[in-house]
Amino acid sequence: MILAVSLNPALDVTHHVAGVDWSGVNRPREIAAAPGGKGVNVARTLRALGCDVLVTGLAGGVTGDAVRAGLDAIGVPGRFARIAGETRRTFAVVDTRSHDTALFNEPGPRVSNGEYHEFLVMYENALAGSDAVVLSGSLPPGLPPDTYAALAGRAAAAGVPVVLDADGPALRHGASAGPAIAKPNLAELAAAVRRPVSGRAATARAAGELRDAGAGAVVVSLGHDGLLAVTGDGTWHAAPAGRVAGNPTGAGDAVVAGLAHGLVLGRPWAERLRHAAALGTAAVAAPAAGQFAVADYERALAGTLVTRWKGR
Amino acid sequence: MILAVSLNPALDVTHHVAGVDWSGVNRPREIAAAPGGKGVNVARTLRALGCDVLVTGLAGGVTGDAVRAGLDAIGVPGRFARIAGETRRTFAVVDTRSHDTALFNEPGPRVSNGEYHEFLVMYENALAGSDAVVLSGSLPPGLPPDTYAALAGRAAAAGVPVVLDADGPALRHGASAGPAIAKPNLAELAAAVRRPVSGRAATARAAGELRDAGAGAVVVSLGHDGLLAVTGDGTWHAAPAGRVAGNPTGAGDAVVAGLAHGLVLGRPWAERLRHAAALGTAAVAAPAAGQFAVADYERALAGTLVTRWKGR
Repeated sequence: MILAVSLNPALDVTHHVAGVDWSGVNRPREIAAAPGGKGVNVARTLRALGCDVLVTGLAGGVTGDAVRAGLDAIGVPGRFARIAGETRRTFAVVDTRSHDTALFNEPGPRVSNGEYHEFLVMYENALAGSDAVVLSGSLPPGLPPDTYAALAGRAAAAGVPVVLDADGPALRHGASAGPAIAKPNLAELAAAVRRPVSGRAATARAAGELRDAGAGAVVVSLGHDGLLAVTGDGTWHAAPAGRVAGNPTGAGDAVVAGLAHGLVLGRPWAERLRHAAALGTAAVAAPAAGQFAVADYERALAGTLVTRWKGR
Repeated sequence: MILAVSLNPALDVTHHVAGVDWSGVNRPREIAAAPGGKGVNVARTLRALGCDVLVTGLAGGVTGDAVRAGLDAIGVPGRFARIAGETRRTFAVVDTRSHDTALFNEPGPRVSNGEYHEFLVMYENALAGSDAVVLSGSLPPGLPPDTYAALAGRAAAAGVPVVLDADGPALRHGASAGPAIAKPNLAELAAAVRRPVSGRAATARAAGELRDAGAGAVVVSLGHDGLLAVTGDGTWHAAPAGRVAGNPTGAGDAVVAGLAHGLVLGRPWAERLRHAAALGTAAVAAPAAGQFAVADYERALAGTLVTRWKGR
């Protein structure tokens, strides 16, 4: 089983409006509400890949109940510690005429020590049956930046490998706790090494530094340019066949799901990266985060070129 | 007790953003979620006036639970038949820099016959202890346009006077069922008489026709121009002292609350209209629908001029 941690899940509400009046009244006819947040998106993708998965985290209020009910509805098992605060919403307005999308991300509820410790008990229990843990997404207010480092430490103690997708201090702290894989994007990598990073050589150098800080491997997502991975088995580049039009939200989560899946299956790096990059490409083509079409995935798998960029 | 019917309540979510990016990611820092919909707004205003009030209607899903919990939190008693569908949200984005507000109103869930009949039992039971009923707001999908007419008929049978605030066919049907007061705005009045209406004489003529169709009195809300009322005690105009800056959403609901309050208190028309118009003015000055500041109300009461425009 893969355990996906979602400390700050969300109810993603999407309104489709043909020609938005940004200073008036709109009557959206197409409305979607689905559980979201990076950990949840990773779990949805893993579930779609046929993996045994469990999402665990913190959820509160009626919006937390909506997240729980939404996961039930799509067959993704979830176990969340109940918090007093109200789980956040994200709100997307998609203008079907202009193709503009405006996104409104609520910050999320404050989490108390007691609530976090209730989650920790669930996490420890779930670790016992897990083949890998995914730690991804923002930390809610109230949790310190070394939270992922602490969770990675507990996973290491239980012998469970970790895939980490975090930002800022949570990434820096978390990388030092020895995750099997850290997956920053380019901006997150630059923030972690505290300097601008551009070009493939500089990216590999920066990823190597993050790896030296403690991660087993660092896989950098480069958007349309695919993935660059600095691993114990050399430096690799996975390049998609071409640009795909669509919604890049959630593509990083699909990559993380692919990396975790490959880790659990023991896929060699070339195959692991090919699958992860292909899932990212297929996710861009899908209408909502956490989803992909099998045909897009298969097409992307065939089109992704993985090269060993340099040996170790 | 005043019974406020809310067949299509909503959870009103408001995001305050300083400088909205309408094609990018926004991180609102000030977020509000409150029970809404016209019937709920009327009840909030009546509660603030010190009235004994009960909201009844249809609510479902976690958003319905949020409406129930929100009413509890503000001390407004509610009794809703549970429906299988999910109660709607409304979503307002207030740009605190440009002062633009974009509103997104979800249509509401479909209501089945069985669910409606469960509501009817609640409604009949509540009628027995009611001094007046307010029927206001949109009908959810699945309910026929003569729904308010049927509810008004049951109230009449129970000897309980009705205040009706509806639109389109629901207004036309409802007016013929003999409500004590119908409260259209100018656009709703024009739709009811099926011709454009402008100018005070034409408005009084159209209101008179709607009254002839069955309403005891017709009070037309004219925005900044106050109220024009065609009643059994002559035709009246209530004029606010001047224009008030603010948010007109919910001002009509405040007027309806004032009319229902005055009806129950047996206030003569001049006083009834003065209070209703003043509540409308105070509601415009308040930040959210269903709210008003007592000082604004008192100031508006003193400033509202009521004239008997012509005798009957």
